[in-house]
Amino acid sequence: MESVGRHLIMELWDCNENLDSVEAVRQALVEATAACGATLLELFVHPFTPQGITGVAVISESHILIHTWPELGYAAVDAFTCGKKVRPEEVVPVLERYFRPGHVQVMEMKRGVFNARTRVPAGAVVR
Amino acid sequence: MESVGRHLIMELWDCNENLDSVEAVRQALVEATAACGATLLELFVHPFTPQGITGVAVISESHILIHTWPELGYAAVDAFTCGKKVRPEEVVPVLERYFRPGHVQVMEMKRGVFNARTRVPAGAVVR
Repeated sequence: MESVGRHLIMELWDCNENLDSVEAVRQALVEATAACGATLLELFVHPFTPQGITGVAVISESHILIHTWPELGYAAVDAFTCGKKVRPEEVVPVLERYFRPGHVQVMEMKRGVFNARTRVPAGAVVR
Repeated sequence: MESVGRHLIMELWDCNENLDSVEAVRQALVEATAACGATLLELFVHPFTPQGITGVAVISESHILIHTWPELGYAAVDAFTCGKKVRPEEVVPVLERYFRPGHVQVMEMKRGVFNARTRVPAGAVVR
């Protein structure tokens, strides 16, 4: 079995810093991209009224995304990377440094799982 | 229990059309945004060499993302939406129309699950 990429789904709770800082979200995305060994293609950060930020780093190896809810002390982060050289788990310490969460949950999902020999998706109906 | 949003994780296999069309990915994101009742903030589509596309729609309600692997007939799509008015499941027929997948898997994850009364995250350690 092979897969096209690894998708880390992260839930950050009890965040004590920077959830409403556009500059911090931007810097966290830049540093997270570098930390996991990815290549940044595009960076977009949008502040909401009255609060909350969405930041997306489009990388050559897929994406890193941060959505923040300061009113809940919560951030949802996704890091989806393809290729064997990129290490999406390196995003986690960067997030911890920027947002100081009291509690982090990380789940990992393989995306695009297929049979390496037949190149048929795992679970495909054989017709 | 409440949550900040719904995250649909979609695996499209045996796609027969448009996996390497920048214009189709762009249009699919625009129509998917409209179909689920979301508001488009930013659209970014990047073609890779020799093939494959990443497209991201940043929406007021979070994001819709498409990554394609034409060599595998595969696309990974995420639709993360917050708010009760947006219906991320409406993305699916748009994707089916644009990419003609033979097989689609949709998983749904609630993000930012918390206790509506105490506003404490589900699973939080009570100290």
